[in-house]
Amino acid sequence: MDNTIGIGLLGFGTVGSGVYEHLTRNGNLLRERLGIDLRIERIAVRDPAKERTAPRELFTTDITAVINDPRVRVVVELMGGLREAKTAIEAALRADKVVVTGNKALLAEHGAEIFALSDAMSVPVFFEASTAGGIPIIKAVREAFVANHFLSFHGIINGTSNYILTRMTEAGLDFPTALAEAQARGYAEADPTLDVNGWDAAHKAIILASLAYGTWVRPDGISVEGIDAVSAADIRFARQLGYRVKLIANINAGDQGAISVGVHPTLIPQDHVLASVNGVFNAIAVKGDVVGDALFYGRGAGGGPTASAVLADVADAATALVNRGTPRCSGFRAHGLYGKALPPDAVVSRYYLRLAVDDQPGVLAQVAGALGRNGIGISSALQPEQHDADGRAQLILMLDRARHAQVKSALAEIEALACVKPPAALLRVETFA
Amino acid sequence: MDNTIGIGLLGFGTVGSGVYEHLTRNGNLLRERLGIDLRIERIAVRDPAKERTAPRELFTTDITAVINDPRVRVVVELMGGLREAKTAIEAALRADKVVVTGNKALLAEHGAEIFALSDAMSVPVFFEASTAGGIPIIKAVREAFVANHFLSFHGIINGTSNYILTRMTEAGLDFPTALAEAQARGYAEADPTLDVNGWDAAHKAIILASLAYGTWVRPDGISVEGIDAVSAADIRFARQLGYRVKLIANINAGDQGAISVGVHPTLIPQDHVLASVNGVFNAIAVKGDVVGDALFYGRGAGGGPTASAVLADVADAATALVNRGTPRCSGFRAHGLYGKALPPDAVVSRYYLRLAVDDQPGVLAQVAGALGRNGIGISSALQPEQHDADGRAQLILMLDRARHAQVKSALAEIEALACVKPPAALLRVETFA
Repeated sequence: MDNTIGIGLLGFGTVGSGVYEHLTRNGNLLRERLGIDLRIERIAVRDPAKERTAPRELFTTDITAVINDPRVRVVVELMGGLREAKTAIEAALRADKVVVTGNKALLAEHGAEIFALSDAMSVPVFFEASTAGGIPIIKAVREAFVANHFLSFHGIINGTSNYILTRMTEAGLDFPTALAEAQARGYAEADPTLDVNGWDAAHKAIILASLAYGTWVRPDGISVEGIDAVSAADIRFARQLGYRVKLIANINAGDQGAISVGVHPTLIPQDHVLASVNGVFNAIAVKGDVVGDALFYGRGAGGGPTASAVLADVADAATALVNRGTPRCSGFRAHGLYGKALPPDAVVSRYYLRLAVDDQPGVLAQVAGALGRNGIGISSALQPEQHDADGRAQLILMLDRARHAQVKSALAEIEALACVKPPAALLRVETFA
Repeated sequence: MDNTIGIGLLGFGTVGSGVYEHLTRNGNLLRERLGIDLRIERIAVRDPAKERTAPRELFTTDITAVINDPRVRVVVELMGGLREAKTAIEAALRADKVVVTGNKALLAEHGAEIFALSDAMSVPVFFEASTAGGIPIIKAVREAFVANHFLSFHGIINGTSNYILTRMTEAGLDFPTALAEAQARGYAEADPTLDVNGWDAAHKAIILASLAYGTWVRPDGISVEGIDAVSAADIRFARQLGYRVKLIANINAGDQGAISVGVHPTLIPQDHVLASVNGVFNAIAVKGDVVGDALFYGRGAGGGPTASAVLADVADAATALVNRGTPRCSGFRAHGLYGKALPPDAVVSRYYLRLAVDDQPGVLAQVAGALGRNGIGISSALQPEQHDADGRAQLILMLDRARHAQVKSALAEIEALACVKPPAALLRVETFA
């Protein structure tokens, strides 16, 4: 029994160097727990001249040389990007090297092809680090909850957005100020687009949904909204109504014979555990038909949490390789129960609607009329004393469950009313009832 | 490749019948996900005449017949109790049958022997269902966080206690009333002793600590307190100070070259996620040196959650058997980093102390003097206007970190003071700072 497993690293940024650092520091612990020596044999980087924390002789610019190194049995892809990473992963699978990746954008976009190749070659791809690094949600969905039909997922899976919303809530900041603070503290990148527009969370939701339901959800078939349009006023009104605003990635199996996948700023009841997930932390609430409600909480990003996930995948791969068993399959098994994703317009939700309206009699009747014509009930209304900067009254309505198409249609009518000043603020509401 | 795995069930109570029911209902799902047919071949029960939800021909009173049935490759022990269950598990291991058990009392008491036999026979024992059924904490500690030194665990792992404390907090009930309510709702057994005296939680903490640190902790070497002595008054004062009272199973690696394991009613800051874990739910906060802070939340007991855990273990065992690989070892690897458990008197904590005192000058000075002589600082004090039923004043002190031996010694001095009416109320405080 060969008890050394060689690892090839592709990429040596925050996560790659974290993997090297923690494997070096905790290598003895892993040896004692696994009975296996995990050894990083080769590291591919773009610039070999840069100062690094690992010995210079490990580095090369030649990705193929790392993949084809006969000592390397597990290839860890942490390069990011799409085209080059996809080529590397496919080459590794063809060379019979187990793949570990944290590349969420790649899996969300090309997962179907990559896992088809993985199946064809009988070489597994591990991807715990792709979704909420410090939270072992992939292992939970694939293994711990394997006996469950999944009824729903509600995830806070973008730390940058959650930090910004937390600061807007706690300190009353507006979005630009909270974003600037997040950037100053290193919680948001110089270009925060993918974080604040919801797409980073959407990539993770696509991976989770595909794993849970065995069917690859197309990025262009889901509804994605970020936090860039959330106003401090809505966060304040939501609090008055007993809610917190969170960016929620929601997957629902629902009762319409299909799943729905979406990312939206969403009002969450203040006494729900998700409402107390603050700062850069992530959390994912899962409902299974056997296990009931469960929730996982942890850091979603950063060198440590993501390295922990990568090393767990490497340990699983190495254990299987040493035992000459086939590692548990990727888990993306089509089980035919949920044929397709619902189109976003068909997805049912509760809504929070805020309108700037003329302060005159009859406004509520006109708005309620437009909602009623579209079959939407009002569950509660709030019209605070304070007016907005233009002297208009604020009208906040909590709407009953409705399809998104109904809400869009009603909103078009409402925004066309003379007494309403567009745009309206529209947020989802999740009551978990 | 034989793709059917036969299962023998020992016991058919709430969990056993839950396993049968959910495996029957979700058998197709498991087949599609695993590529394996899981089939319950035989079930041992005490009374074969009782009406059951499974076909009569599956049942027998002969445990040995189930274990030795050649179709049975995985034995699921859900009998409970110690002696008979231990004999059955040992017989199964000797017969080369993989064991799945949810028997926390047995593992806490005899885990060292059982896993020594498991190692000697190279036949694994799975035990996810032993600790917080709906929370995959065993898999997380053994696999997902395998690259981590564990710094601490803080668990709410007894649902009965948490329900009672939640009702005492929310409705101001006293302990006997809340317990009666829990019993009426089926959340507490007719004999609730092991739940309310802390020992059910202690069994789970022993299993977790032993798994995390590779060293079996002896039940007689840890400090265990239940919630039976928690008063509604202390819950109320804790709230005033910004805390919630929870029954916390705490494991600390600390800096004293040993681990500490204990179960105590503990004050938790109200904005910590653990403080929002209410009702019968369980949660476990884990701190790892690589992953940082993580938390798992879910139902700890009941047929569904526990069956989900049992079936996940069965799936892991079956996958390994079908692939002819050795399933991942039990995980109890002594890694020599934490030699021993600290004696309870050496464990350091912050404390909440409530005294009934004569309403006269100089009392605080006498109490503070006793604390000072034992090297214990006071971080804050509260003396509410209200007096107790005997007309005495209430003095609440938040104490700085101290060893339990110091606190015991100070308490003996304080309770001997003429101005103090024993007994004092003493609770741990965890600030996570």
